[in-house]
Amino acid sequence: MSTQTTKDLDTLLKARYGQGPQVLDVLNPTLETIFQHKSVRGFTNEPLAPNTAELLVAAAQSASTSSNLQTWSVVAVEDQGRKDRLAAMAGNQKWINACPLFLVWIADLARLKALGDEHKLEHESLNYMEMLLMGTIDAALAAQNAAIAAESLDLGIVYIGGIRNKPLDVAKELGLPPMSFATFGMCVGHIDPAATAKNVVKPRLPQRAVLHKETYHPTAHKEAVDAYNATMEKFYAEQSMKPLGPWHIQSLHRVRGPEAMAGRDLLVDALKKLGFDMR
Amino acid sequence: MSTQTTKDLDTLLKARYGQGPQVLDVLNPTLETIFQHKSVRGFTNEPLAPNTAELLVAAAQSASTSSNLQTWSVVAVEDQGRKDRLAAMAGNQKWINACPLFLVWIADLARLKALGDEHKLEHESLNYMEMLLMGTIDAALAAQNAAIAAESLDLGIVYIGGIRNKPLDVAKELGLPPMSFATFGMCVGHIDPAATAKNVVKPRLPQRAVLHKETYHPTAHKEAVDAYNATMEKFYAEQSMKPLGPWHIQSLHRVRGPEAMAGRDLLVDALKKLGFDMR
Repeated sequence: MSTQTTKDLDTLLKARYGQGPQVLDVLNPTLETIFQHKSVRGFTNEPLAPNTAELLVAAAQSASTSSNLQTWSVVAVEDQGRKDRLAAMAGNQKWINACPLFLVWIADLARLKALGDEHKLEHESLNYMEMLLMGTIDAALAAQNAAIAAESLDLGIVYIGGIRNKPLDVAKELGLPPMSFATFGMCVGHIDPAATAKNVVKPRLPQRAVLHKETYHPTAHKEAVDAYNATMEKFYAEQSMKPLGPWHIQSLHRVRGPEAMAGRDLLVDALKKLGFDMR
Repeated sequence: MSTQTTKDLDTLLKARYGQGPQVLDVLNPTLETIFQHKSVRGFTNEPLAPNTAELLVAAAQSASTSSNLQTWSVVAVEDQGRKDRLAAMAGNQKWINACPLFLVWIADLARLKALGDEHKLEHESLNYMEMLLMGTIDAALAAQNAAIAAESLDLGIVYIGGIRNKPLDVAKELGLPPMSFATFGMCVGHIDPAATAKNVVKPRLPQRAVLHKETYHPTAHKEAVDAYNATMEKFYAEQSMKPLGPWHIQSLHRVRGPEAMAGRDLLVDALKKLGFDMR
């Protein structure tokens, strides 16, 4: 558990960017934890310490939430059968079967709906797109706090977007009430050192592609993507990964059309069936 | 800047919950930073150290991003005129005018669209709801990392959902290209000690309302909300705040209908005009 920094800022930025941006020269254990994030897809059999989920959720609830409405929930899954069924729904990602704790983060308007129904008070806004986005944002802010909290304890995590592949099946498995939606999952566990070769910090786009000063610069990505492709080519070689091509080719292949969306092209229909009107 | 913990876990949980949940008994500077979060709405005139935005964005880019697509951007606004105009668009929240750095977090499909157009490759999935949600989630995970990073440096932040009140005006002000959307803003600055009375940790719902074990428990909120209302009543009294009523009444008033949505009831129309087909 980190209470002191063990690396220097240059080393951390170099892992994240290849060639690092110029940033304020300061470091502390929290920044070090954040900069060292890597998605972990190999977990040991070691169970988590009791009440780990409660600690992570206390961190999650400490995140900002719009108007204090707290439009999110989390389902903590430890049962092996349920993890196995959710893994099958989310594209057979075997780290879901293997992790001791699988957290499913819920955009949750059901709580306010229930309170409105119980107290006979209007809650018409819940039928608007705005509130689905609010719940999704609230869930993501909460989840990221839990992720950082877990990593500060040397646990590994990986987000699972694949939980959106089959929203109706997931809702049924978790007993979700109408107006709640599983936005993404998160595996939590002790990192398997045997899988560490793949548990490395992944480089990101140069800052100039992402950070816009005062106004958005629509051509900022051009030369930045060339530089990033070079960084990623080196990364793929080091990791013995064989991508389809440079990052932009691989990414465009990922978004080429509904046939590559693993069911998520049907999300609007599923959300309507889950009770979101999205006006 | 925290490199050691200064409080104990019980004190931190008590501030967050009134009566704290039973959690794994562990603390480190990162957890302490997370647990102590409070929204800050009073900033001093002191400018930020050079390259603070770059440090926060390095933290933001260290967050997970779906399939490494990096479907987000951030616009860093320091110009006083632009901050003033954005403040007017976001419901005249005066801390937007006052903060030295206003970050606007963008769900950004425009970068992939531009790459697809430039390289003449299909990018049909960008027209689906799934990708709007992905960009929104990616932006939120990134922003929360920046928030924690800022707070680890003793800076204050507050999220601004009001940036969604007038999405078209905000897009014009920031020069956003089609298929990008300002999801929320974030004020960053040095905390004004004169405003600290209002900069306190806000209690959240008891964990049993939010954390569901194995499956969602639709009645978990009932008794939890009663307990929370009691906690919040004490909090409001301490803060000399005069809410409309208990938390559930105030929250339901907030979601009573489109007349209380400050323009966000028109979000679908605005998103379509911004180039999101949301199929």
